[in-house]
Amino acid sequence: MDCIFCRIANGEIQSYKVYEDDCFIAILDISQATKGHTLLIPKQHFANVYEIDEEIIARIFKKIPEIAKAIKKAFNPIGLNILINTDKPLQSVFHFHVHLIPRYENDGVRMEFENNYGKLPAEEFLKIADEIKKNL
Amino acid sequence: MDCIFCRIANGEIQSYKVYEDDCFIAILDISQATKGHTLLIPKQHFANVYEIDEEIIARIFKKIPEIAKAIKKAFNPIGLNILINTDKPLQSVFHFHVHLIPRYENDGVRMEFENNYGKLPAEEFLKIADEIKKNL
Repeated sequence: MDCIFCRIANGEIQSYKVYEDDCFIAILDISQATKGHTLLIPKQHFANVYEIDEEIIARIFKKIPEIAKAIKKAFNPIGLNILINTDKPLQSVFHFHVHLIPRYENDGVRMEFENNYGKLPAEEFLKIADEIKKNL
Repeated sequence: MDCIFCRIANGEIQSYKVYEDDCFIAILDISQATKGHTLLIPKQHFANVYEIDEEIIARIFKKIPEIAKAIKKAFNPIGLNILINTDKPLQSVFHFHVHLIPRYENDGVRMEFENNYGKLPAEEFLKIADEIKKNL
């Protein structure tokens, strides 16, 4: 399979690495949304969060507080977004990955959501919760 | 400490729960960005990703593929964003939490970033990677 993140993870394509272990690599996103924008990529191929092995996502996130703190110490951002995109919109490479995006004043990044779905009555909340629960 | 997510997690404030174990709860965000917008909240208080216990974040994310799949089965969204906000911008409750935001056509949510930091020479990438590595 010709997956660019598989080729980066196995060293076939060069990257700017900040961390590596047997499970995943952390590299600078070649398209830096902001200074220090880092990607965490498992070495094994999974298309997205629906398919990733639960032990592997747990191992990646176990390390995330430490990597987040290193980014904070390095660049002193005003905030940090950790983001996983699945399918549309925004997933561009179909190999599971996690974005760490340090945030700065007027950095041009937009992560905006509000109560777009509107105010709901309790019955509607219960119905939504039931729909999820019955699929768990 | 008067933390609304501590009060929700210990049952003092009612919520629309979709999952619960000894480590965390998953509830509907009372402000539904989109239909099925879910929050995962550890029962123990941690302000943010810099402070959270690594075993606890690992336990939460180990369960995320299953909850993501349940949301997908329930509502058939076109995509899903998983987001952790830290400090400004957007962290409104200073008790660590993870947003699962199913996405639909024209849902009004904006998660946009591009190469805002600009095209960089290799030396600059190496310098940025070194800054992070030396703080790890």
